[in-house]
Amino acid sequence: MRTSKFFLSTLKEAPAEAELVSHRLMLRAGLIRRLGSGLYSWLPLGHRVLRKVESIVREEMNRAGALEMLMPSVVPAELWQETGRWEAFGPQMLKIIDRHERAFLYGPTHEEVVTDVARREIKSYRQLPVHLYQIQTKFRDEIRPRFGVMRAREFLMKDGYSFHADHADLEREYRNMYETYTRIFTRLGLQFRAVAADTGAIGGTGSHEFHVLADSGEDAIAYSQDSGFAANIELAEAVAPASGRAPASRPLDKVATPGTTRCEDLAALLKLPLEKTMKAIAAMGSDGFCLLMLRGDHSLNELKAGKIDGMAGLRFATDAEIEQHLGCRPGYIGPPPISADRKVRVVADRSAAALSDFACGANEEGFHLKDVNWGRDLPEPDLVADIRNVVDGDASPDGTGKLAICRGIEVGHIFQLGTKYSEAMKAVYLDESGTSRPMVMGCYGIGVSRIVAAAIEQGHDDKGIVFPAQIAPFSVAILPIGGAKNPAVMETAVKLYDALLASGVDVLFDDRDERPGVMFADMELIGIPHRLVISDRGLKAGTAEYKGRRDASSVNVPIDEALEHLKRALASA
Amino acid sequence: MRTSKFFLSTLKEAPAEAELVSHRLMLRAGLIRRLGSGLYSWLPLGHRVLRKVESIVREEMNRAGALEMLMPSVVPAELWQETGRWEAFGPQMLKIIDRHERAFLYGPTHEEVVTDVARREIKSYRQLPVHLYQIQTKFRDEIRPRFGVMRAREFLMKDGYSFHADHADLEREYRNMYETYTRIFTRLGLQFRAVAADTGAIGGTGSHEFHVLADSGEDAIAYSQDSGFAANIELAEAVAPASGRAPASRPLDKVATPGTTRCEDLAALLKLPLEKTMKAIAAMGSDGFCLLMLRGDHSLNELKAGKIDGMAGLRFATDAEIEQHLGCRPGYIGPPPISADRKVRVVADRSAAALSDFACGANEEGFHLKDVNWGRDLPEPDLVADIRNVVDGDASPDGTGKLAICRGIEVGHIFQLGTKYSEAMKAVYLDESGTSRPMVMGCYGIGVSRIVAAAIEQGHDDKGIVFPAQIAPFSVAILPIGGAKNPAVMETAVKLYDALLASGVDVLFDDRDERPGVMFADMELIGIPHRLVISDRGLKAGTAEYKGRRDASSVNVPIDEALEHLKRALASA
Repeated sequence: MRTSKFFLSTLKEAPAEAELVSHRLMLRAGLIRRLGSGLYSWLPLGHRVLRKVESIVREEMNRAGALEMLMPSVVPAELWQETGRWEAFGPQMLKIIDRHERAFLYGPTHEEVVTDVARREIKSYRQLPVHLYQIQTKFRDEIRPRFGVMRAREFLMKDGYSFHADHADLEREYRNMYETYTRIFTRLGLQFRAVAADTGAIGGTGSHEFHVLADSGEDAIAYSQDSGFAANIELAEAVAPASGRAPASRPLDKVATPGTTRCEDLAALLKLPLEKTMKAIAAMGSDGFCLLMLRGDHSLNELKAGKIDGMAGLRFATDAEIEQHLGCRPGYIGPPPISADRKVRVVADRSAAALSDFACGANEEGFHLKDVNWGRDLPEPDLVADIRNVVDGDASPDGTGKLAICRGIEVGHIFQLGTKYSEAMKAVYLDESGTSRPMVMGCYGIGVSRIVAAAIEQGHDDKGIVFPAQIAPFSVAILPIGGAKNPAVMETAVKLYDALLASGVDVLFDDRDERPGVMFADMELIGIPHRLVISDRGLKAGTAEYKGRRDASSVNVPIDEALEHLKRALASA
Repeated sequence: MRTSKFFLSTLKEAPAEAELVSHRLMLRAGLIRRLGSGLYSWLPLGHRVLRKVESIVREEMNRAGALEMLMPSVVPAELWQETGRWEAFGPQMLKIIDRHERAFLYGPTHEEVVTDVARREIKSYRQLPVHLYQIQTKFRDEIRPRFGVMRAREFLMKDGYSFHADHADLEREYRNMYETYTRIFTRLGLQFRAVAADTGAIGGTGSHEFHVLADSGEDAIAYSQDSGFAANIELAEAVAPASGRAPASRPLDKVATPGTTRCEDLAALLKLPLEKTMKAIAAMGSDGFCLLMLRGDHSLNELKAGKIDGMAGLRFATDAEIEQHLGCRPGYIGPPPISADRKVRVVADRSAAALSDFACGANEEGFHLKDVNWGRDLPEPDLVADIRNVVDGDASPDGTGKLAICRGIEVGHIFQLGTKYSEAMKAVYLDESGTSRPMVMGCYGIGVSRIVAAAIEQGHDDKGIVFPAQIAPFSVAILPIGGAKNPAVMETAVKLYDALLASGVDVLFDDRDERPGVMFADMELIGIPHRLVISDRGLKAGTAEYKGRRDASSVNVPIDEALEHLKRALASA
């Protein structure tokens, strides 16, 4: 493609409202333009990226045996009324009234439509399994759309739905999709993690999110650096320390700690490591008052704590409740000593239960206890459980390696739906014995347009976008410097351009009569992975100048070898 | 693809509401399923056809230099208010209100959006020309959707828009698109005609429709069998007979013709050819009463007649008006004789003006005149003009060959918009002299989903669909007869299947354990162009049975040559 025949529309500055780096760069590079709130046009440059992402997704879905189809974007309300989602989905669903005053919606997802197809077409176990998918424009009427195409109202999505005779076959397809998504994001050239998205209550295989790793990601992810384990930080299990609890080694001591209510201050005052202090969190659950004990360096995971028997509806206790149950104001509270008449329920985190010779509140204003030990000074906890958030360096719950924490952008989600939709919509089949059974379903989404933004969040520098080679709008840029006035430069550049085209390389030939600085800046801004500069000075030296987008500096290569050099660079990308 | 892994869902009968053959066959073959009024899901089989059409359109648009992009389907009302189309477009426009009570529409076409992109991005003549297109789902809220995807509410369309510095450059791109559309429909394997869609008043180059020829088409088209001329029958020019008017050869005669009010009856009574009779149509226009004279075998074209000076607002005269102006009841009227005091305006069609010795009404109930001649018996017509519909056998207005009449389905439209949208939306650029000018625009549409239905209207027989090879869902079907019980049959069939796959052929391997009759019927119904049958009997004879979808009968080919035979058949298709 020649730049003169293309529609390059770069900007020096992005509009002020663009907060996210990908949003700013997509506007500056001219990948997208805003049409309205949460509505973006994909200009030709951005569209090339979008189509490349789409193609990889399609190829891998087809390879995995899924069948592409296309459902209407405008869906009759009746179908969503059957599953109750017409009322339940909320205001993100864009309702539409047609000229006959009939109610429709712009599909934000298509479980109902595809289940309707399945219940009409599938009668027998012999027709199962089947996996239908589409790549389609969706709409979610976000209340405050922002971040460009990262959270747009109209977006491009791959949504797939599988139908099975039983749960075992759903699990087989779920693994197939797990592997397919892994192949897709690998081919897209992205660093990503598959994250267990559920609580583990249904075996930990019910749902996985695929996250592109990026500092700006909305979700925090804990992952093992040595295995495939990854989970949303809210859900990652904090395992018990392998070493267990050391024996008590020093006698209990009560120390005056006036004005010292935080563990950090206590550790400093007592010259202890923070992890030798203990915080007590007073909470109210369905069974009443409870003390949650955590190491000073750990934080409570309310999701986990709320799932403990008797802790449903967890909330923090009020000061009055604390005084009532412990006889002490917050800041100095702790479990009543083993000798005390007063008893309260104590739930200790696994790490807290493994501490010995630790410091904690004395249940007396202005005092803490030092060298405290469970069983000796305090009763053993009523319950030891995982109630904290994992931290960097924790052992991985799969037993392999340590956890690290990173941030991610959700770009894919696979989900074992089971029979939720098939039962609501009576999508049944006859099994081998002639018995009618609901089909077992899975669903599998990929945010195609969001991937473009996520790739840029992961790949950019101060000059602009650094696209993975697989989805860059062009693979190579050829820049003839001063070519308009120098026929030798132009001729050499055109020859290379033609040779690359003939080899099937996606090459942009910058034949604009622009200053070199403008050409360099544009090609770096739009993220072309390989750049070859032909100049008068180079020609005289018999060289062309090559630079990879991630390279710190350029190299001169003999003109005759430039083509081979580029091809090697392309092959190694 | 193996049938067992595919989603084949054929029906013996189509639902009763399907009127059109393409609609019936698309339902029976399982290409589409109805979701709601004018809303269809494309099942995997139909989707393959849709994607093949889309790919050919995309390839040729790209080859022609157009740049693909993607605009939102949901468009803010403000843009359409700028051009006045928010009010003018009518109820086919699907209006949408979002959660913030702001007005949008589901774009039925995108002139406003693309013009908004152009006015923001294009500042200088140096950025022109540019041609932007998209392939996108559109919505038109038809009051009575019918004929399946032929006139659906939601449909897939390629819509392109070009921007130019002047009209000459628009005309260049218009020709480019004319040729591109010709290539597209040729590659799609369709019989089609490019039809001049306007009146010729702006040079005949302002708009062309591309029609797929099919008996069921909504539009009648007149075309030259010897040249590229084609026009909507309403607009095709009826030229004057080349031979001119013959001299009068017989004296005027008045004959009694009681009860004979139609030209057909008059010709029979007088034993004249119909084309020697003349019909007089009494009409009222802006200048009052007028007689339109046509040969008995011709029909009035009201569109043409209404454009004559003084005939604006053309309507047929009432009986009272006829009596008032001619003194005679309808059925026997004609121009007042040359000798009469009574004068009325007479407009004669070119063919009528060229007649001599003809028969027409005597302006006296129960009587006609015979061997009438203009200038001798009747005054020369006040005006000679083209006021009739062309008929089969007319001379082509481009001077080459004779006209034939056929019916067509509009699948493409190219249009020189000029500055209609750029002026309304202030889409201007600076020309070389620094003057601000409105961009000159063209627009170019193709009904991608409609093409699938049109191809079936053109290609079908009593067994089902006969797809052009280029857009068939699969190119080849391999049928192993009784393969489930005969390993030799299955093995031979699989070998051929694998060899075809390795050659990149789109092949469907029917590995269902079905009766041969079911397999044959399904493969014929869905329109696979080439079929190869492997059977026990064939194997014993060392042959496979080949049949092209259009062939009357099958041929046996040696097993060893079956692959080559298929490849030859594929290449010649």
